[in-house]
Amino acid sequence: MSDLAALARRLEQFADARDWAQFHNPKNLAMALAGEVGELVAEFQWLTPEQATTVMTDDAEAAAQIRAELGDVTNYLVRLADILGLDLVQAANAKIDANDKRYPADTVRASARKTPIDHWSPLQADSWLPPLPSRQMAMLAEPPGHLYRR
Amino acid sequence: MSDLAALARRLEQFADARDWAQFHNPKNLAMALAGEVGELVAEFQWLTPEQATTVMTDDAEAAAQIRAELGDVTNYLVRLADILGLDLVQAANAKIDANDKRYPADTVRASARKTPIDHWSPLQADSWLPPLPSRQMAMLAEPPGHLYRR
Amino acid sequence: MSDLAALARRLEQFADARDWAQFHNPKNLAMALAGEVGELVAEFQWLTPEQATTVMTDDAEAAAQIRAELGDVTNYLVRLADILGLDLVQAANAKIDANDKRYPADTVRASARKTPIDHWSPLQADSWLPPLPSRQMAMLAEPPGHLYRR
Amino acid sequence: MSDLAALARRLEQFADARDWAQFHNPKNLAMALAGEVGELVAEFQWLTPEQATTVMTDDAEAAAQIRAELGDVTNYLVRLADILGLDLVQAANAKIDANDKRYPADTVRASARKTPIDHWSPLQADSWLPPLPSRQMAMLAEPPGHLYRR
Repeated sequence: MSDLAALARRLEQFADARDWAQFHNPKNLAMALAGEVGELVAEFQWLTPEQATTVMTDDAEAAAQIRAELGDVTNYLVRLADILGLDLVQAANAKIDANDKRYPADTVRASARKTPIDHWSPLQADSWLPPLPSRQMAMLAEPPGHLYRR
Repeated sequence: MSDLAALARRLEQFADARDWAQFHNPKNLAMALAGEVGELVAEFQWLTPEQATTVMTDDAEAAAQIRAELGDVTNYLVRLADILGLDLVQAANAKIDANDKRYPADTVRASARKTPIDHWSPLQADSWLPPLPSRQMAMLAEPPGHLYRR
Repeated sequence: MSDLAALARRLEQFADARDWAQFHNPKNLAMALAGEVGELVAEFQWLTPEQATTVMTDDAEAAAQIRAELGDVTNYLVRLADILGLDLVQAANAKIDANDKRYPADTVRASARKTPIDHWSPLQADSWLPPLPSRQMAMLAEPPGHLYRR
Repeated sequence: MSDLAALARRLEQFADARDWAQFHNPKNLAMALAGEVGELVAEFQWLTPEQATTVMTDDAEAAAQIRAELGDVTNYLVRLADILGLDLVQAANAKIDANDKRYPADTVRASARKTPIDHWSPLQADSWLPPLPSRQMAMLAEPPGHLYRR
């Protein structure tokens, strides 16, 4: 049994032991996931990107809090997927496969070099895809739609 | 290598191949996670809890979309944890351990039976924990603080 | 001066009096807004839709908490718009104007009558707009994209 | 009638004209608000704080998208408050009143000067409130709880 499958079973037992499975429908669990992600985001909201990068070693208490929030997020995500009957790792890999085709590495890399992050300009985005404005890059998932309406 | 570790390595290669690792600091990735969770929540927002429970078999297109959103959420969560150097499964289990002590199954279950979901009342919450109003139950993570300020 | 303009000025003074304006860039404020909305969502996550409808009169403590969260959300939204130089009421009305054209009332209403919420089916969505599955209705903003890719 | 009251009435008419009021319970509307805030966050996720500060003048298309997302967020927030019977401006002012007392300007300002943003340290947070680590400052709403559990 995979790590995630074992976690899903433990969460099911946790809920069943408390008569809480009655509350764990996908709508409620999606909300609970959103609530926990809100708490995670709050941990980073006043940090600069540089501070966020070193927070785990620079601030023991913030690090413990971030770890706890990531635990909460993982638990609700795994429970939601279990209730829906979905395999998270398969779903994740399917999205990487799709994005691999959508953003070919060679094209994107060449474009990234032409438009460094500190010099992006909306003018450079008038033609489709290369050169993408660098600010839109870095997505693992699909980017905001407006880039592609051009 | 666990499933999640393999996924983390694939995401790293995906980002490196595109020069995108420069954008993947924890602050940005927490935002990207929040954005994807927003899209996931939107899939359920107009469904009743009952419709949400059967959507995966009742609506093939919505099911595909929910699976894709869960893939996106998983990818950003795994990437964020990898950048932070955190083990998601360990963090998740640590939270279940803590909640196991915080909400003893016997006490909670007895309380759940006394205050069924359709008869919860604020009056019943005046004493600490048992009987908790049922509407506050079902959490895997910590509940809203106001319950515990009493 | 409108209510919202007065609120924006008060928030500016609050931040300036504490040397906090340095942290109030749009990226940080968008995160703070997301964090507060996460807390608001958490207030409703275990309620049924029916309980959510009567919570303000049924549970004085939850009502106070919901009011406080809505205050937080409003403050960050107004502060963010002020920093961006945007008028929220104008932006809101512009979206209603756009949605008025996108979802003509007569067409939508007729469709809603033909496909009641408890009988929606993906088959009925194959032709554009009428009959929309009712579960997709009710949006003030744009609906999930997948409905419109058909 | 205030701007927000007029907006609430327009939103009610919009929903009623489409038979959509049946979907507008507080649980669903809180989810819709979260979904729209997710889209707003996505607009800023790959921008540096500096790019976020100038995006409205530097990128006409992103500016239009941000304005549209803020319009959506405002509409769902106003609609939710209207359904709940809450006055957003009153709720917002009540939170500023509370935070005014909680974070006295003189104390906070003195602390901010002693611990500039690039030199914050967890050691400095061991005593309550002054000096707060600067990274926790800038909140309009309540800060993450862990700072105050010390």
